[in-house]
Amino acid sequence: MSTDQGATFTYTGGPVAVSERARQGLARPVLFEYDPAHLRRFRDVERRVAQVFGTSGDVVIMMGEAILGLEGGAKGLTRPGMKALNLVSGIFGKWFGDWLRDLGAEVIEIEVPWNEAIDPASVERAFAEHPDIALVGVVHSETPSGSLNPVAEIGPIARRHGALTIVDAVSAFAGTPIEHDAWGLDITVGGPQKCLGAAPGLTFVAVSDRAWEALRANPAAPRGSYLSLLDWKDRWIDADQPRFPHTTSVAEVNGVDAALEELFETGLDASYARHRRAADACRAGVRAMGLRLWVEDDSIASHCITAIATPEGVSNLKVIDEIRARYGVMLSDGEHGPMTEAVFRLGHAGPAAMSLHPVVALAALGKGLRDAGVSVDIGAGVEAALEVLGRQDRVEVAVHA
Amino acid sequence: MSTDQGATFTYTGGPVAVSERARQGLARPVLFEYDPAHLRRFRDVERRVAQVFGTSGDVVIMMGEAILGLEGGAKGLTRPGMKALNLVSGIFGKWFGDWLRDLGAEVIEIEVPWNEAIDPASVERAFAEHPDIALVGVVHSETPSGSLNPVAEIGPIARRHGALTIVDAVSAFAGTPIEHDAWGLDITVGGPQKCLGAAPGLTFVAVSDRAWEALRANPAAPRGSYLSLLDWKDRWIDADQPRFPHTTSVAEVNGVDAALEELFETGLDASYARHRRAADACRAGVRAMGLRLWVEDDSIASHCITAIATPEGVSNLKVIDEIRARYGVMLSDGEHGPMTEAVFRLGHAGPAAMSLHPVVALAALGKGLRDAGVSVDIGAGVEAALEVLGRQDRVEVAVHA
Amino acid sequence: MSTDQGATFTYTGGPVAVSERARQGLARPVLFEYDPAHLRRFRDVERRVAQVFGTSGDVVIMMGEAILGLEGGAKGLTRPGMKALNLVSGIFGKWFGDWLRDLGAEVIEIEVPWNEAIDPASVERAFAEHPDIALVGVVHSETPSGSLNPVAEIGPIARRHGALTIVDAVSAFAGTPIEHDAWGLDITVGGPQKCLGAAPGLTFVAVSDRAWEALRANPAAPRGSYLSLLDWKDRWIDADQPRFPHTTSVAEVNGVDAALEELFETGLDASYARHRRAADACRAGVRAMGLRLWVEDDSIASHCITAIATPEGVSNLKVIDEIRARYGVMLSDGEHGPMTEAVFRLGHAGPAAMSLHPVVALAALGKGLRDAGVSVDIGAGVEAALEVLGRQDRVEVAVHA
Amino acid sequence: MSTDQGATFTYTGGPVAVSERARQGLARPVLFEYDPAHLRRFRDVERRVAQVFGTSGDVVIMMGEAILGLEGGAKGLTRPGMKALNLVSGIFGKWFGDWLRDLGAEVIEIEVPWNEAIDPASVERAFAEHPDIALVGVVHSETPSGSLNPVAEIGPIARRHGALTIVDAVSAFAGTPIEHDAWGLDITVGGPQKCLGAAPGLTFVAVSDRAWEALRANPAAPRGSYLSLLDWKDRWIDADQPRFPHTTSVAEVNGVDAALEELFETGLDASYARHRRAADACRAGVRAMGLRLWVEDDSIASHCITAIATPEGVSNLKVIDEIRARYGVMLSDGEHGPMTEAVFRLGHAGPAAMSLHPVVALAALGKGLRDAGVSVDIGAGVEAALEVLGRQDRVEVAVHA
Repeated sequence: MSTDQGATFTYTGGPVAVSERARQGLARPVLFEYDPAHLRRFRDVERRVAQVFGTSGDVVIMMGEAILGLEGGAKGLTRPGMKALNLVSGIFGKWFGDWLRDLGAEVIEIEVPWNEAIDPASVERAFAEHPDIALVGVVHSETPSGSLNPVAEIGPIARRHGALTIVDAVSAFAGTPIEHDAWGLDITVGGPQKCLGAAPGLTFVAVSDRAWEALRANPAAPRGSYLSLLDWKDRWIDADQPRFPHTTSVAEVNGVDAALEELFETGLDASYARHRRAADACRAGVRAMGLRLWVEDDSIASHCITAIATPEGVSNLKVIDEIRARYGVMLSDGEHGPMTEAVFRLGHAGPAAMSLHPVVALAALGKGLRDAGVSVDIGAGVEAALEVLGRQDRVEVAVHA
Repeated sequence: MSTDQGATFTYTGGPVAVSERARQGLARPVLFEYDPAHLRRFRDVERRVAQVFGTSGDVVIMMGEAILGLEGGAKGLTRPGMKALNLVSGIFGKWFGDWLRDLGAEVIEIEVPWNEAIDPASVERAFAEHPDIALVGVVHSETPSGSLNPVAEIGPIARRHGALTIVDAVSAFAGTPIEHDAWGLDITVGGPQKCLGAAPGLTFVAVSDRAWEALRANPAAPRGSYLSLLDWKDRWIDADQPRFPHTTSVAEVNGVDAALEELFETGLDASYARHRRAADACRAGVRAMGLRLWVEDDSIASHCITAIATPEGVSNLKVIDEIRARYGVMLSDGEHGPMTEAVFRLGHAGPAAMSLHPVVALAALGKGLRDAGVSVDIGAGVEAALEVLGRQDRVEVAVHA
Repeated sequence: MSTDQGATFTYTGGPVAVSERARQGLARPVLFEYDPAHLRRFRDVERRVAQVFGTSGDVVIMMGEAILGLEGGAKGLTRPGMKALNLVSGIFGKWFGDWLRDLGAEVIEIEVPWNEAIDPASVERAFAEHPDIALVGVVHSETPSGSLNPVAEIGPIARRHGALTIVDAVSAFAGTPIEHDAWGLDITVGGPQKCLGAAPGLTFVAVSDRAWEALRANPAAPRGSYLSLLDWKDRWIDADQPRFPHTTSVAEVNGVDAALEELFETGLDASYARHRRAADACRAGVRAMGLRLWVEDDSIASHCITAIATPEGVSNLKVIDEIRARYGVMLSDGEHGPMTEAVFRLGHAGPAAMSLHPVVALAALGKGLRDAGVSVDIGAGVEAALEVLGRQDRVEVAVHA
Repeated sequence: MSTDQGATFTYTGGPVAVSERARQGLARPVLFEYDPAHLRRFRDVERRVAQVFGTSGDVVIMMGEAILGLEGGAKGLTRPGMKALNLVSGIFGKWFGDWLRDLGAEVIEIEVPWNEAIDPASVERAFAEHPDIALVGVVHSETPSGSLNPVAEIGPIARRHGALTIVDAVSAFAGTPIEHDAWGLDITVGGPQKCLGAAPGLTFVAVSDRAWEALRANPAAPRGSYLSLLDWKDRWIDADQPRFPHTTSVAEVNGVDAALEELFETGLDASYARHRRAADACRAGVRAMGLRLWVEDDSIASHCITAIATPEGVSNLKVIDEIRARYGVMLSDGEHGPMTEAVFRLGHAGPAAMSLHPVVALAALGKGLRDAGVSVDIGAGVEAALEVLGRQDRVEVAVHA
């Protein structure tokens, strides 16, 4: 066995440190995918994922990381020449526009600075100007920026104007309320490796009936492909004799099954509250340390990750390496494109939202910056975070099995 | 925790019951994918997978089940109008031809009955007739049939004629020798969920320099896609600052890392011998029980799975269900297309190739058939299998950690 | 990590291969023993162990292997000069008499051949002759012999004559019905490492009120000692502010907690039936192979282990070593004193009582004996065992979590 | 599976949160104790435990928590009327004197306040006064007080005067250097559940040749008992055909095996340095918060635990309960006798000595006290601890497997 030295604490944009329960799930025996016990488990996972999405419709569990669901959804819904509205408040949104254009869509883009959120009024205005918009793409939780978009308001606008909506809710899933049906969303993509505290390797995709119709009507929608949502619909969901389109990741499903057990034992609302509180604690701590939050408006701050503007004169990449090497704590940079060096990010998704983890993340960041010569009031930061964490009578703690 | 009742013994076409070591790997903490410890582990997995493939060239670890690698490879190498030779000795080969046609290739097909193997002389003849064949597709181990094709001979023929070869070696990987470089192969696809005894969810792809050139030269090769081999080459393998094209399945990589540790501790040759012996034991047992092997020629029999022709008058599907329900043993049917009801399959890949597992598989099959009214000499079958298993002085047993 | 090669299949007198669930329990985080969550779990384990014992009285979980409970019980109840009746049907009973004598008791011993069981009438006669017998020692399940004693009849006799009864029910626990209260037993000792399928390291002790009085009245009963039952009564069971007498084996308790979860999910009766069926299958197989059962009377045969008389002319020790080395299957010899070379033993306690495990044990034994030159009809043995296992409509299979 | 909510962070006097590696060891398959692979592992554990003890002599691994080794050693070495010197710097030492007196020894006691250490000069004086002292009892690391005694100096004094020395080194083992041979010790008792980061349930006992002679010469030394060291010597260590005196705790041994692997991969010296640094960080933090260390003299402070005097006007028990409930962090009180309410204790043994764990412990303690109305400068405490942790270029971090 190799003797790699892993970080003691992981507070990143994901993959996050998985929960105890998810790890126990991963360690279960790997059954044959058509073992009746596994089939029951798979259906049970689908059912509970649907609950988290707030949908009574179909959920597809695709056998790859979340981008697989986004690619499958985008390629399935987009037709050359179709008019698509892409909402950009960060790099994930930016990339989605590139995809739409590559697929031949005529893309109308609303872009706001990457530390702000999309204004629903601007979406209304876009529809007023372009009543033929057929597809709206929006990122619910922009992980690189640590911001949220008001999908609850954007979804109904699109629906009212007859457009389909595809939502990247990967890092929102299980940490921030999502109402796929009530908000009128069509394809909503979630993932296990953030607030659910499970391992990366699966995508959850909620698909509305309207979306199925659109997919079926699109000759370019992937079929007979790893990217295909329709394969899942035809061979698994609607089939008389359901077969998986290809071999499923049994161990990942086991891990997610266990993580969902824990989620529903503690309750969805408790999970949302826990993530919210961890975010509040981090934000209070960052401000008290004298650092600048990338997203200054608390009302649009992500529940699962907090981005901090890299202070003048330091390399966030080097500081993160030093924190990892000296203190055994793994933090994230902005990870993508222009965000990469612009921010530090403290992840607080899944188990990292529990107990005093935000204090550890703040102490590590503060000490790393001080070691690099930045003046930081670590003590004040820790005190401010503790003050937030102490407001509740009882903190949710890890549910060990 | 749910109380699903899983099979006690799993002898299927895969996913197979994973090894103890793989399970311990899966249960490790999930590190951030850019944690230096995880990066070292990832590189180390690549290096050892390359050893199993017998290549000093690149290996790509794609984040999905093996069909992802086959789709990525096929879409990367195929161009509309190109002439492709597809070798069909079973349903996997059949499907590959469909893919090639869908991608616009002009497909020459050599097909043999699905319990036989491709004759290399027929490949030579095809090249004689069609010197412009640019691509050869072949399945190394046809899991649904339990047969092997002589890739060691086919590869050099294709190479000599300047054609690229793409090989489905998923169920051969780690159980049957593969020599990607020496046999002149270009894209060889392996998987962890068979003879390696790890969980499904990753694809291993060995890519020759010639294949990279062809991929790069093909404008239709997937780029910026979950299917893309080139993304891995550009962003990870050759990049100055390597980044994963998308989030990687950290837990699966951990599981494979542990399974590879065990593989190299026991030795590749020992693994090949163990799989060979399990196959021999199963085949002797099947014959002694009075049943008919689907592949009668021992020299082309798969090392990892044994197919038995469904006896007249019984439904293999029902018998398999009954064996699972009454005896807690999970066997496979033919699983795909016309093979589905044609055969029972006893999987002996990974840990199922160890110790007396073949005896359990034979006893379960024999008793299930007898319960269904088929006359079977179970005792003789078990005796014959034991005789084979006893030939060696020392049987390789599970390496528990 | 060391590369020891463990047996693939373990069918021994114990420790047995633990269940999947027990292993998952063992892998849980180790909480502080006074963590409220651990305290709840500990109490919950006590409660369920009491259910298995059939008692509404106290259960002590001692922090060492079963012999710790037997020693603590014997030293607690025995006083110099007291008259004790010791019932010997095997070596464990024999040893218990040595203990009683060492402690100064006047020991009346009823001994039967070690492949028979105690006749309750002989116990009645002993009380008739010695009305002042104050203590009765009896082994419920003589693991080295694979036999059961009629404790259900012996207990009430002792109770009627005012004697205390101490019972070694270690290998009976969870595999054979025990009714501590209904049978009038006073100290009954069980263990996790047999039919419960958990790891060795704890002792379960059911203690009647009469036994507590006797312990308290005995100045020689261990106090302030690792052997002391009274310490547990005073500091933990009856204390206002309960404290463990010493550090408890948190991981073992976690393992037992998980194993008990599984036991009660499947049901106690199902566990008894499963063990009975495995024993019946083994016994049928042994007879059909042409070997001689050590205990010929089925009505007194242990549910958890089957002893086979070593055939003339072979060394059971050597044969067991060869089976382990050649076939990866671990069987037991008689393990203690004169039993050591007298028998082979096939353990079928815990998970080894499931599915086709008895077939594996029989095949291994048969092949090992044949390799050593003994004429054995392995095929007939396997057939006979399968016939028994197939009688039920549905076999209980492993409950994987 | 029960839904107990365990603490997220455990910083107690032990059992401590076990390391990842130990947990993976605990989850291994449980082999039969006489499986050759397990026998190799057991011997290998003995060998490495001996290395940690600094002995080339015998090590006995007893199958129960550390007090089992102390009781076995004390009962083995003590004879009625023998003169014994008992050194008391805390409650564990106090208790040891009670044992010696119960066993009939004439006990000379040197007692210092329980926040100080034994002065070796006082030991010399005791021998001068009582040249017939035959046994010296001393606690190396007084866990309830968080103090160390100078065993390196006391051992040689006793040896020079011909007395045997029995040492409680349970919480020192693997965190503080021990030299059983070089210091002339006779029975040294260690445990896995502190600095080694493994689960409680075993005792490690180093036994000198002189001690074996004394045990053998003592008719009252336990024999044929769970308490017996001699049983291990005769049946296991020196036997031609070694047998375990009773069933061994296979899973615990697996856990310790894995923990020892990690210990020797990182190095003993690194372990000592890590524990020292964690203690220094905690002590600096406590002082900076304005609290009072129970042991004010840094030179005698335990490496594995830090005791803090309970501030006036608060109940440490209540504060600990609140910290556990509100923040998910488990701390210890003094746990025994008069220490119980006198101190808070922050455990930093095993994995809790890594990375920023001391910061978490300090933040939890500080916040809990502030919530209870005590004025504490948490920020200053955290800053002081970070300053200590940052002194080294590279902090040892968890070795994940």
